[in-house]
Amino acid sequence: MSLNRVCIIGLGLMGGSLALALRQAGVATQIVGCGREALLQRAREMGAIDAGSTDAGDAAAECDFVFLCTPVETSIRLMREIAPHLKPGALLTDVGSTKQAFATAASEIFGAEAHERVLPGHPLAGREVSGLGHAAAELYAGSVWVLTPLGVGEVASHGMLQKAIEAIGARVVMAGPEEHDRTLAYTSHLPQMLSTALAMTLAQEFGEGQNPAMQIHAGGLRTMLRLAGSDPAMWEQIVASNPQNIAAALERFEGELRKLRESLSDAEFRRKFEEAREFAKFVKG
Amino acid sequence: MSLNRVCIIGLGLMGGSLALALRQAGVATQIVGCGREALLQRAREMGAIDAGSTDAGDAAAECDFVFLCTPVETSIRLMREIAPHLKPGALLTDVGSTKQAFATAASEIFGAEAHERVLPGHPLAGREVSGLGHAAAELYAGSVWVLTPLGVGEVASHGMLQKAIEAIGARVVMAGPEEHDRTLAYTSHLPQMLSTALAMTLAQEFGEGQNPAMQIHAGGLRTMLRLAGSDPAMWEQIVASNPQNIAAALERFEGELRKLRESLSDAEFRRKFEEAREFAKFVKG
Repeated sequence: MSLNRVCIIGLGLMGGSLALALRQAGVATQIVGCGREALLQRAREMGAIDAGSTDAGDAAAECDFVFLCTPVETSIRLMREIAPHLKPGALLTDVGSTKQAFATAASEIFGAEAHERVLPGHPLAGREVSGLGHAAAELYAGSVWVLTPLGVGEVASHGMLQKAIEAIGARVVMAGPEEHDRTLAYTSHLPQMLSTALAMTLAQEFGEGQNPAMQIHAGGLRTMLRLAGSDPAMWEQIVASNPQNIAAALERFEGELRKLRESLSDAEFRRKFEEAREFAKFVKG
Repeated sequence: MSLNRVCIIGLGLMGGSLALALRQAGVATQIVGCGREALLQRAREMGAIDAGSTDAGDAAAECDFVFLCTPVETSIRLMREIAPHLKPGALLTDVGSTKQAFATAASEIFGAEAHERVLPGHPLAGREVSGLGHAAAELYAGSVWVLTPLGVGEVASHGMLQKAIEAIGARVVMAGPEEHDRTLAYTSHLPQMLSTALAMTLAQEFGEGQNPAMQIHAGGLRTMLRLAGSDPAMWEQIVASNPQNIAAALERFEGELRKLRESLSDAEFRRKFEEAREFAKFVKG
């Protein structure tokens, strides 16, 4: 199985790791990168890409599979830019954190052909660091990679993409773009907001992380603050592309937290704790 | 340095680990345990204790240092029970998660002698599992152990206790009982409530942890749900002994989260994320 010629646009943590992973799995005959000149050079030195261009249209032109590995808004802009350059039969995909905005743009750009030409994706992998310097072939191993088809009907290139994703160790889960964004608001965006709001609350209370009182904490605090270290620019884009779902998830959480607070001194508290523990048991890491 | 004869009342994860740690560090000439008969036998087999009694007063009677390793309410009841049996100069301490209720009870029981006879403590160590079966000599290594003196003035036995704690690898931090409970409400109890309320919110939205949609999540979710697996009985006791501080911390968090939600679509959002990241940087694991 081979994807033949692959183009990876955006050589940060996600794109760089993808190039290394495809290379390691031997599922691409050629990998063409797109990014700033210095990044292209670095990626060549790392053996991540075979060729490259600073122009997205040029980089994508001769490729069979094109991965947009940039933040959502940038990927939408680049999709519009490279659409006229794609060769017939080429499949375009992305790794954006939300899918509805990208899916809508794909339908606008490709019309009736959208389902065949674009298969939006979202690998649920990443770290609190970014950049090509942190790229690793193992980034996607063991993770879930969501694909959100724009229509029904089998497309040969979709199957090839799925096989390539599995070859780099990820597990494909299919979902509609809307279902994806609604689910992620709860399973990813909400947890992020809680970690950030926890850090904000502590900053309000203790002034700064170096306050001596902040020594008095156990490992659980560090755990709950881990996500607060995430990239603000990335989250600004995620939030901008999924605001209603995130607001709804936050409001629902606010209601549950208020109920928990109001039950602090009654028997309901224990029942809630037990239900929460039962639920958490099934969420695998 | 030796604590001479040590009594450990309560042979669960905390007490069992403490016995093993003191043994390994060689800072006790004899360790007397107190717990149910089956636990005493198991602890003897593990080499954690030299002798034992199911009666707290009997176990403590001849010892120089007595550690109450039971939940807060139980420790208060046992302190009252063993007080008449303690030998002169013996020091009583505990490992309870909150300190004000225990400190107040100590002052009631020992009056003017409280500062000399009791030095409340709280090792910020633990796991999501409990019981002697999980006890390990390394539990306290690298953790913070808070001591909350009930008065001022040097007491020789206090210094010995501190040295023993350091000998098992923990770092002693001094704080007043009130400061301890207020701080912990933010650094431990609040994070716990957030993890539990997150699980409750997801249970509301997805019905159960086995819902297929729940496959669509990244590692961050598991991180944020880790604390939700904690023991409900233990948390019932913690909450019962620190309700005002916890309610205040929750209300403050609710305010910050609401502000974050209201800023989703404006520039304030990015600034909040950056501040939160800056704060979280200084919180070491």
